[in-house]
Amino acid sequence: MQTIKELKILISEEINREIIRLNKTEPTNLYEPIGYTLAMGGKRLRPVMVLMACNLFTDKIEKALPAALAIEVFHNFTLLHDDIMDQADMRRNSLAVHKKYNPNIAILSGDAMSIMAYNYLQKSETENLGKMIRLFSDTALEVCEGQQYDMDFETRMNVSIPEYLNMIRLKTAVLLACSLKMGALAANAPERIADLLYVFGLDLGIAFQLQDDLLDVFADQEKFGKKIGGDIISNKKTFLLLKALELSDDPTKKELLGWIEKYEFDHQEKIMAVKNIYTKLKIKEITENNIEDFYQSALDVLNEIDVAKETKEEMVALAKMIMSRDH
Amino acid sequence: MQTIKELKILISEEINREIIRLNKTEPTNLYEPIGYTLAMGGKRLRPVMVLMACNLFTDKIEKALPAALAIEVFHNFTLLHDDIMDQADMRRNSLAVHKKYNPNIAILSGDAMSIMAYNYLQKSETENLGKMIRLFSDTALEVCEGQQYDMDFETRMNVSIPEYLNMIRLKTAVLLACSLKMGALAANAPERIADLLYVFGLDLGIAFQLQDDLLDVFADQEKFGKKIGGDIISNKKTFLLLKALELSDDPTKKELLGWIEKYEFDHQEKIMAVKNIYTKLKIKEITENNIEDFYQSALDVLNEIDVAKETKEEMVALAKMIMSRDH
Repeated sequence: MQTIKELKILISEEINREIIRLNKTEPTNLYEPIGYTLAMGGKRLRPVMVLMACNLFTDKIEKALPAALAIEVFHNFTLLHDDIMDQADMRRNSLAVHKKYNPNIAILSGDAMSIMAYNYLQKSETENLGKMIRLFSDTALEVCEGQQYDMDFETRMNVSIPEYLNMIRLKTAVLLACSLKMGALAANAPERIADLLYVFGLDLGIAFQLQDDLLDVFADQEKFGKKIGGDIISNKKTFLLLKALELSDDPTKKELLGWIEKYEFDHQEKIMAVKNIYTKLKIKEITENNIEDFYQSALDVLNEIDVAKETKEEMVALAKMIMSRDH
Repeated sequence: MQTIKELKILISEEINREIIRLNKTEPTNLYEPIGYTLAMGGKRLRPVMVLMACNLFTDKIEKALPAALAIEVFHNFTLLHDDIMDQADMRRNSLAVHKKYNPNIAILSGDAMSIMAYNYLQKSETENLGKMIRLFSDTALEVCEGQQYDMDFETRMNVSIPEYLNMIRLKTAVLLACSLKMGALAANAPERIADLLYVFGLDLGIAFQLQDDLLDVFADQEKFGKKIGGDIISNKKTFLLLKALELSDDPTKKELLGWIEKYEFDHQEKIMAVKNIYTKLKIKEITENNIEDFYQSALDVLNEIDVAKETKEEMVALAKMIMSRDH
């Protein structure tokens, strides 16, 4: 069983080889931005999940490398297009592609990345290739659906908690779930176990996204990579905000909606005011409980999986790493 | 052997069923624009090519329906994203998606269409599915490359004729070629014949695009759908312009470049002036000869294909229709 660190090195080397190839491929304006995007780094969480899931069943993890690369390129494609849609100028301390190059190059490079993901995936040498392509394609479409719901929610005030959970399942969790199942399929694991890994990834992904919502407000500024309170400033319909709207009495709700509707405000003042409402309503504790429930549910599913306990340990370590991330 | 008309009805019915399904699928803001795009119509040239190529080898053309739908959805995806990039407000007498909805919805709906194309393709029931997915994916990436070269050429004056032919091969011809090969693969045709159909499609596609360049300047305004001279106004590096730059003597070249560099001008005056230069340099005849060469080369390849002469007749009719289009 290889460690998270070893798997990350393995996929990083593969990505670096690919970046070198892309930087030599024409047309330059199409492929160089793709290399630039892949070189921005990140935790390579999803490809590590692919490789680790494969490693649960076989030592030949190179079998899962094409799928790992496919998932990472697809994930980076979604970030690239999301940055255009969100008009986000920065990504991982670098200029976003649409800013470094231009929006047209960003649209087209993203389109090419989405197609390239399939090209990588097709290099998988396994009789499960058909299943893997279907899983990948279904997942990719779900991620688009999640992104659309997320955009729709920006202009809706009546988003319910179940609707929100469905959105983060689609936007975030299914790709983590797909990563794990993909690795299992690449290793020719029994379908039933591959499906259990999928469910594990789904629960873990929802816990991961709820944690993201929580950290935006309650993280330790020093450890947290980005500015605290970004979601509050942009009125993002996070689990915290939706829960607060659900639980607040009339005067508190009025105060909260007042902040949401304000056009001009002092950023710190708004963050403090909303945070105070959250504290009054025990939103932090409620969110933590929800995260714990999904996380525990994930671990329970993992326990059902029929592989030696020692080989599962690294997967538990990965789950812990995901939940304690500073990202 | 079914006629072009019959095949067009068949694919149109399939597309209409899909539009109805899409209009009932959530999230509405993702799937309704896709239905809207598919409902704009068009000649359904590429899916008819898929079905006809299949029909060369078998009566069971339903075998090629998933591939036909995949190619049409992919083609419409490229038009959708091209319209954002070109800031084109209209498409087939309707508002372009980014105008009717908004640019973000247009980006994301396009992304979903590109993925859906793979989902349709996967429904093909044939042992050649792996080959078909590979062919589709390679082609899709080439179309992106063609679009990037096309955008690159906008700001380059030194585009050579071979570079231009390579660009239109990628941007236009490979998808026609892929359509034909795809239909043959769906019918389990011998690989050698499928490859000949690919070459036929490639030559035909280049002839088709050169014809498009020619019609922009020399079409009969009454029969031509759009305004004559659009490429001249926008300084598009067409075969005609590149050939004129290649063949013109110094004073003529100076005059031509003068028109290209002018910021303010009377549209009709510029069109007439450039058209006069083209006429002086016999650009119309030269382009017609080039079209004829590619078209004849296409027909020669078709002749090599080992299917009964009568079954080939409809394919020749399709080639003729493509070249005499009023589009």
